[in-house]
Amino acid sequence: MKQQIVSLEGRSYPIIIGRGILGESKTLQPYIISDQILVVTNETIAPLYLAPLKKGLISDYHVDELVLPDGEKYKTMGTCLKIIDALLENQHRRNTTLIALGGGVIGDMTGFAAAMYQRGANFIQVPTTLLAQVDSSVGGKTGVNHPLGKNMLGAFHQPQCVLVDLDTLDTLPQREFVAGLAEVIKAGLLGDSDLFTYLEQNSQAILNKDPEVLAYIIERSCAIKADIVAQDERENGCRALLNLGHTFGHAIETGLGYKDWLHGEAVACGMVLAAKLSCKINALDEGALNRIEKLVTIFGLPREIPKELSVQELIQSMRLDKKNVGKGLRLITLENIGKAAITEDINENMIKQLLEGY
Amino acid sequence: MKQQIVSLEGRSYPIIIGRGILGESKTLQPYIISDQILVVTNETIAPLYLAPLKKGLISDYHVDELVLPDGEKYKTMGTCLKIIDALLENQHRRNTTLIALGGGVIGDMTGFAAAMYQRGANFIQVPTTLLAQVDSSVGGKTGVNHPLGKNMLGAFHQPQCVLVDLDTLDTLPQREFVAGLAEVIKAGLLGDSDLFTYLEQNSQAILNKDPEVLAYIIERSCAIKADIVAQDERENGCRALLNLGHTFGHAIETGLGYKDWLHGEAVACGMVLAAKLSCKINALDEGALNRIEKLVTIFGLPREIPKELSVQELIQSMRLDKKNVGKGLRLITLENIGKAAITEDINENMIKQLLEGY
Repeated sequence: MKQQIVSLEGRSYPIIIGRGILGESKTLQPYIISDQILVVTNETIAPLYLAPLKKGLISDYHVDELVLPDGEKYKTMGTCLKIIDALLENQHRRNTTLIALGGGVIGDMTGFAAAMYQRGANFIQVPTTLLAQVDSSVGGKTGVNHPLGKNMLGAFHQPQCVLVDLDTLDTLPQREFVAGLAEVIKAGLLGDSDLFTYLEQNSQAILNKDPEVLAYIIERSCAIKADIVAQDERENGCRALLNLGHTFGHAIETGLGYKDWLHGEAVACGMVLAAKLSCKINALDEGALNRIEKLVTIFGLPREIPKELSVQELIQSMRLDKKNVGKGLRLITLENIGKAAITEDINENMIKQLLEGY
Repeated sequence: MKQQIVSLEGRSYPIIIGRGILGESKTLQPYIISDQILVVTNETIAPLYLAPLKKGLISDYHVDELVLPDGEKYKTMGTCLKIIDALLENQHRRNTTLIALGGGVIGDMTGFAAAMYQRGANFIQVPTTLLAQVDSSVGGKTGVNHPLGKNMLGAFHQPQCVLVDLDTLDTLPQREFVAGLAEVIKAGLLGDSDLFTYLEQNSQAILNKDPEVLAYIIERSCAIKADIVAQDERENGCRALLNLGHTFGHAIETGLGYKDWLHGEAVACGMVLAAKLSCKINALDEGALNRIEKLVTIFGLPREIPKELSVQELIQSMRLDKKNVGKGLRLITLENIGKAAITEDINENMIKQLLEGY
């Protein structure tokens, strides 16, 4: 069992990584302060991991459960309010603990419900997808989508701890597993060229879910993210770097109505677009772009935007991106593999040409 | 023009109190960082103060407006989401400023919408009721009601500033004005016996809205609240004292379905109940209780719970109160006029006797 600490003033917490630790009550006990727990999960995960998780808790706590439908399209305020209803119907007090058992959608919604409930309840992340383990469960961003934009409603709300049980990846469909690799690539691109090289050199072992290799890339990805979050919890500065590929990615997801593509797939395509843009503005060399495109391709992730999306719609959606503060677009670009930058006031025509280039 | 600073680490802000300052653009300018503003108000306030407020801003900013229906029954997530819709439809960026122009309901909902919008936008409070001026606009508590409990959803989100224009009290209906006095009494009971005595000695001048007297009691109430909030922003300790009368009060409001009684009326009745409970547990003497009952009566505020409410329902509702952390009830009691305390694990039977005593 390994621990990675997210260092935040007064509210630091551990990411605990191991195998078969999900049902061990002693792992979570230090992070639960009340006698009440609400486990929130979805219909896919519940039959697999709800019973073992509850078994470890039920003798010491009053445990309620809520099983939500599965999918990004349910990441809405309406679904989130079902969590609030469950808390109130079961008379949970403000010091209750919500446990998010599932992927990024469950984690984001449960965390947001915890943030809102009586102005702030406790919560624990138990991510069961690679994407959630390396990205969404770390750093305290919570929220839901709005028909006019992804994650437009939310809160910064840090969990008490994050519990990553690598065994949960055994049941993760390969397509979702691969989508999670997009965020691992992102971690390498942002802050660790060695991790990127490791991914290139171990791509087959990764796709075969080799346990040692997985443990390493998850730990490294969490460490890179934890480091950035510790520097800038509220995204006033460098935390924006974590959005590499996400402005393009979110625009694609919004255009598709959060259907057909997984988040990681959209991010992979978004990172390729960001890399191309970086070449266009002479920040990144062609060799690095080629390595990025090659790795994305080896993992079977998409590099091209869906044909049915209009460039105009994509740009309209990018204008609404949370990172924009002035009148031009603000995007994360690459200077090298392992080094990203925030670039302000990018001309919309350049983006238009880039998107039409397909 | 007077200023009272709410001192919070890194996020201090002023409460600006004056006459005719609502339309002076220079007062607000230092607190607005973007070129976008959304003014949120209600149907009662809009015809009175929306035009003057906008007039002061419109030359320097892009100003959108949203006029909501008036009343506590609209303090719901559904109404709050209309604010979010307005922001997205008008493409407001994360650094936009929401201005809450109205009473506590508008302030609480607008602040909560600002807290959620893209995980945190800026907002300014322009309270137009006495209750909002002395209580709800100060301290950063925002939120909405749920059918199962008042303010069950919300966030701690501090405004950039609070602008109190005393002229707005001229148009406030007398019943609402008097309801606001409940929170002024509370401020005296909690932290300033001199303020309480001042209220006793100047009750007629207050009821006649004497400008000098009003300016004094508003400033004192804000100062007392600001001091408590500065000590304990997130209500881990002494901030709970501000809930004096509110656990009973909220139970009454929930029982009435947020109809018939105004919030301040319920709080006044709740404070009398809290004072009686304090006598029952030998914390407060009868003389102090009599003074409290007398002042509440002079101001024409209710002292007795509505006959149609069942004691069982009231207690059930109190159990859900956010202040409860253990299994017994936790209430704010009085030790003297000017000194309150948090009392844990109060026996439900004692509350039952107290409520049945009417």
